[in-house]
Amino acid sequence: MYSKLWLNYEAKENGAIVISEGFDTSKPVYINAVKELLNAGILSESTIRIVKACDESLGEEGYILSNENGDYIIKANTEKAVIYGSFRLINLLRCGEKLSVSKKEIPANPLRMLNHWDNMDGSIERGYSGSSFFFENNDVVINRRTEEYARFVASVGYNGIVINNVNVKQAACDLINDRFIDKVKALSELFDSYGVKLYLSLNYAAPIEDPAVASADPLDEKVIAWWEEKMKYIYSKIPGFAGFLVKADSEGRPGPFTYGRNQAEGANMLARAIKPYGGVIIWRCFVYNCRQDWRDLKTDRARAAYDYFHNLDGLFEENVVLQIKNGPMDFQVREPVTPLFGGMEKTNQMIEFQIAQEYTGQQRHICYLIPWFKEVLSFETYAKNAIGNGTTVKDIVSGRTYKRPMAGMCAVTNTGNDYNWTGHDLAAANLYGFGRLCFDPELSAEDIAKEWIALTFGSNEKVVNNILKMLMMSWPAYEKYNAPLGIGWMVAPHEHYGPDPDGYEYSMWGTYHKANHETIGLERNSTGTGYAGLYNEPWASCYEKVETTPDELMLFFHKMPYTHVLKSGKTIIQHIYDTHFEGAEDVEVMNSLWQELKGLVPEDSFERVNGRLEHQLYHSKEWRDVINSYFYRKTLIPDEKGRELY
Amino acid sequence: MYSKLWLNYEAKENGAIVISEGFDTSKPVYINAVKELLNAGILSESTIRIVKACDESLGEEGYILSNENGDYIIKANTEKAVIYGSFRLINLLRCGEKLSVSKKEIPANPLRMLNHWDNMDGSIERGYSGSSFFFENNDVVINRRTEEYARFVASVGYNGIVINNVNVKQAACDLINDRFIDKVKALSELFDSYGVKLYLSLNYAAPIEDPAVASADPLDEKVIAWWEEKMKYIYSKIPGFAGFLVKADSEGRPGPFTYGRNQAEGANMLARAIKPYGGVIIWRCFVYNCRQDWRDLKTDRARAAYDYFHNLDGLFEENVVLQIKNGPMDFQVREPVTPLFGGMEKTNQMIEFQIAQEYTGQQRHICYLIPWFKEVLSFETYAKNAIGNGTTVKDIVSGRTYKRPMAGMCAVTNTGNDYNWTGHDLAAANLYGFGRLCFDPELSAEDIAKEWIALTFGSNEKVVNNILKMLMMSWPAYEKYNAPLGIGWMVAPHEHYGPDPDGYEYSMWGTYHKANHETIGLERNSTGTGYAGLYNEPWASCYEKVETTPDELMLFFHKMPYTHVLKSGKTIIQHIYDTHFEGAEDVEVMNSLWQELKGLVPEDSFERVNGRLEHQLYHSKEWRDVINSYFYRKTLIPDEKGRELY
Repeated sequence: MYSKLWLNYEAKENGAIVISEGFDTSKPVYINAVKELLNAGILSESTIRIVKACDESLGEEGYILSNENGDYIIKANTEKAVIYGSFRLINLLRCGEKLSVSKKEIPANPLRMLNHWDNMDGSIERGYSGSSFFFENNDVVINRRTEEYARFVASVGYNGIVINNVNVKQAACDLINDRFIDKVKALSELFDSYGVKLYLSLNYAAPIEDPAVASADPLDEKVIAWWEEKMKYIYSKIPGFAGFLVKADSEGRPGPFTYGRNQAEGANMLARAIKPYGGVIIWRCFVYNCRQDWRDLKTDRARAAYDYFHNLDGLFEENVVLQIKNGPMDFQVREPVTPLFGGMEKTNQMIEFQIAQEYTGQQRHICYLIPWFKEVLSFETYAKNAIGNGTTVKDIVSGRTYKRPMAGMCAVTNTGNDYNWTGHDLAAANLYGFGRLCFDPELSAEDIAKEWIALTFGSNEKVVNNILKMLMMSWPAYEKYNAPLGIGWMVAPHEHYGPDPDGYEYSMWGTYHKANHETIGLERNSTGTGYAGLYNEPWASCYEKVETTPDELMLFFHKMPYTHVLKSGKTIIQHIYDTHFEGAEDVEVMNSLWQELKGLVPEDSFERVNGRLEHQLYHSKEWRDVINSYFYRKTLIPDEKGRELY
Repeated sequence: MYSKLWLNYEAKENGAIVISEGFDTSKPVYINAVKELLNAGILSESTIRIVKACDESLGEEGYILSNENGDYIIKANTEKAVIYGSFRLINLLRCGEKLSVSKKEIPANPLRMLNHWDNMDGSIERGYSGSSFFFENNDVVINRRTEEYARFVASVGYNGIVINNVNVKQAACDLINDRFIDKVKALSELFDSYGVKLYLSLNYAAPIEDPAVASADPLDEKVIAWWEEKMKYIYSKIPGFAGFLVKADSEGRPGPFTYGRNQAEGANMLARAIKPYGGVIIWRCFVYNCRQDWRDLKTDRARAAYDYFHNLDGLFEENVVLQIKNGPMDFQVREPVTPLFGGMEKTNQMIEFQIAQEYTGQQRHICYLIPWFKEVLSFETYAKNAIGNGTTVKDIVSGRTYKRPMAGMCAVTNTGNDYNWTGHDLAAANLYGFGRLCFDPELSAEDIAKEWIALTFGSNEKVVNNILKMLMMSWPAYEKYNAPLGIGWMVAPHEHYGPDPDGYEYSMWGTYHKANHETIGLERNSTGTGYAGLYNEPWASCYEKVETTPDELMLFFHKMPYTHVLKSGKTIIQHIYDTHFEGAEDVEVMNSLWQELKGLVPEDSFERVNGRLEHQLYHSKEWRDVINSYFYRKTLIPDEKGRELY
């Protein structure tokens, strides 16, 4: 049993007539598109014409939707674009759009992907929505739910998914061997039939296990030959296979560093082996020393991705894409944008977000992340030597800035086997929203949310308004009651859930706040680790000085006394107290907004969200009191407003 | 494969002659005793006479050992006592004792037990020596290793073991059902044949699972009948079964409180059901609210056992024994003695220690615990109305003080499937030592250690001296680099390993230190939680006042400024710095002492201990620096000696 999410209309023959002009109507992806149109109640008794466009500007994935005298027209160049257009048509009409003016939509990002961190035993690393629907008991699962998932993904324009965890171990190594390859092929064909390419995470160390090779050195002829043979095998089985995502030299995973090679040498070896077949290697830049001594003040984990990759610009093969996390640390509720965007001109780049709410409430707290992603994407990098239009993050990751052939956006996904797919009913807004944002980063977070609410809960004004308010206030609220001012990491180790101000303070993970009686923060300007200087000007100068550093990142960049007065006019300590009380109060507001919807949203959904809100009410107060007490005990500076601290 | 520990002599026929006078030589326990004598090399070509003593003063477990013109005589009343005497004779001779004067030894404690926290899946709760040797894959294991373990246990005079975890779940519930009862019987007979009674932990909630009962209310007739039937069944299968250990109303386990009954009502219900068969119910007093709000300053976990049990004195059946932890919290490296000893006159009491080093280095650190246990046992309770001799803890738990029929000592054991049984080769000193201490609490920690070293490593003077020094300095060293001055709990949650000063500070476990910029500690005198007042005088007055509270417990009893000057003449903060530097230095000393033994102890043992010491050297510095940094950052008071703080 599973919910239908934003495709929650009854699917049954609707009497519509579909007329095809110029398409190969035997292609599975085309057949599925027509099926969707013939089954959507909103198109009841309509005539839909699907017309081959032969319009170069639409590319392979764009479409034009229009309404000509009551007939709906979908124009596109490819069958794949037809399925995106069909879902979009259905969604638009369901949102009340009349198409009185035709709509031409072309995805901004070539790659629009979801990364599943699913393990073959059915568990999901950082999964908060039940077990995997791709794997269980060390086998691949293909069933009705798989196809339903393909529909969701296609319906918001994602065009790629990586189905297995980037930490590839045990049985997952066999996804590219006889044991599972036929099942991977079947999965791949299923997703292809919805216009979505299937990727695998790859075990860089695989040839080590072959006694005849016993190495993963990217310059070793035997290793090269091993991968050439492996790619030949894979493509002989799955001719349309998309490619691989690789996590190497990270958090205990072997990689080129193990053999004294750089990251480009590692990525290129794989890229050359897969190139003859048109495949792509997506190489993660999440490389840092995870065995740091906490006493060591010189090493700064924030520098790592930049330091390891910046100098390799131009050295990567054309079919390599670097997958770069949005920030320099790891999906905290607030981080600066990584300086690597704006630091490479001749390298394919893709941004990695996380809609799995690892550090943002684990789908037990409401945290609509699209506003945060919008901020990141709009960040002006001041990248030099642009040959295309724009140098914001979204320009760079779309490939526009330097006219790169491959580029895009991806997110670690938030899905699992739970009835509602995403643990929290409202977390589906991130799954929907991220797809829409990949397609069109210019959409506002509000508009995306409104679409999702209307499709999911219908267009009752109170329902739309209240849920919209809840979503839009949720990320700011979470930030308020979390670690303050960009410092991050005040979270329980391992689980990454719940407050633990010193949880990562004396560990090897490179994530320190160094709070003492008077000050907090690691100095990251030129007198400290020099991280601020990695940015292009004027950011480097901006972050260098306390006076010009934005309040919300103050403790990320500077070691500050608690009594420092922020631009807001408040001292840091009072800012901490105030935001933490506010954050918990915001959850009360969200809860009241939801209570008003009793009877207006489906009862089961109401109760599920209620259960999660009850926990969030409790847990946001836990955050509030632990963080405030931590700082109060450390400073003994009382709250100006005399509220209770413990 | 497993080591022979302190019975590491080659067992083969030695030409000895055993003459039995008055015993039933067909009893398995007697046969085993004779087998041990005939196999011990030290008795080569000797004549041993085993003589029925008919000496009431020896009781059922005492014996007299003597040497008459080169013949060894074992006198005892029972076959069971003969096996204790036989092992003791072998051990004494192996330690160089000549028995020129006869030795009469009678165990001080009626119950001398080990508690295994082994789960049926083979895991061990708080086990640090590999998997269980009693269970694997949800089945009972009986093999050569089981018998070897029975020998170890008998050889130091333990007379009871509880083989399964006190948290009884899943398959373990079937240990008293058809599924496993025959295997339990076989195990029971095996241990009986070494003079050791086998006990089980019992699931108090078991009748809830029976749909015809669906309750565990101790006053419910159906529940009573269910247990009567169950006991009848168990004893029909295992007539000599010893009894049960019960953890109820603790850490999520159901119990009488669930039904509004008190602990005596719960224990007595079971005791009455088992009484017809001569069985015993051992009832744990580890009952406290493990869902405390950390903001709540009034509830004091330290009071819990006393508050729940003190008023029930005299209400327990004669075949109930209360099993009471040594301290009011939970096996910390330093706690006061629980005030419950000295607070009950008409109740059978047994002390529970833990040689599984849950909070004392998990058998990766050396921590010889016998000196600590000696301190606890020698604590003067000033118990009132004594009718026997003595009112120290050891007097009370031996049953002497109030002439109780049942009493004794037990420890959560430190054994598992590792080659060396106890994870750390030197941790076997606790397994050996605790047995000896149960038998004779007057033995010194040094003498026990010397025996164990001689039996295990031989009597080379350097070996004995160095290991003795290592053992004797190990608990004080661990205390020095751990949480200071009795405050406890500065440890990583869940794992209970490694420093985490605030790890339990904002949690529900009732274990708070409340450290702020100026002070640390929870006030437990009459101005605070009143815990100090639970002791008999003069302890109540002593702990009431800072001036008379011993330094080592200062932060357990009082909320103190870091600048307070201790009796040692040092401020608390300087005491913290000094002890933490000292503790890590002590480990360097232990390591040097061990390095001197290369070539003098078996190579494999040398290397195993070396590996653990290498970790302890690193980890004691981690403790030192984290604890010192925590307090330095909180206070910004520098070290008087200018050593580096982080």
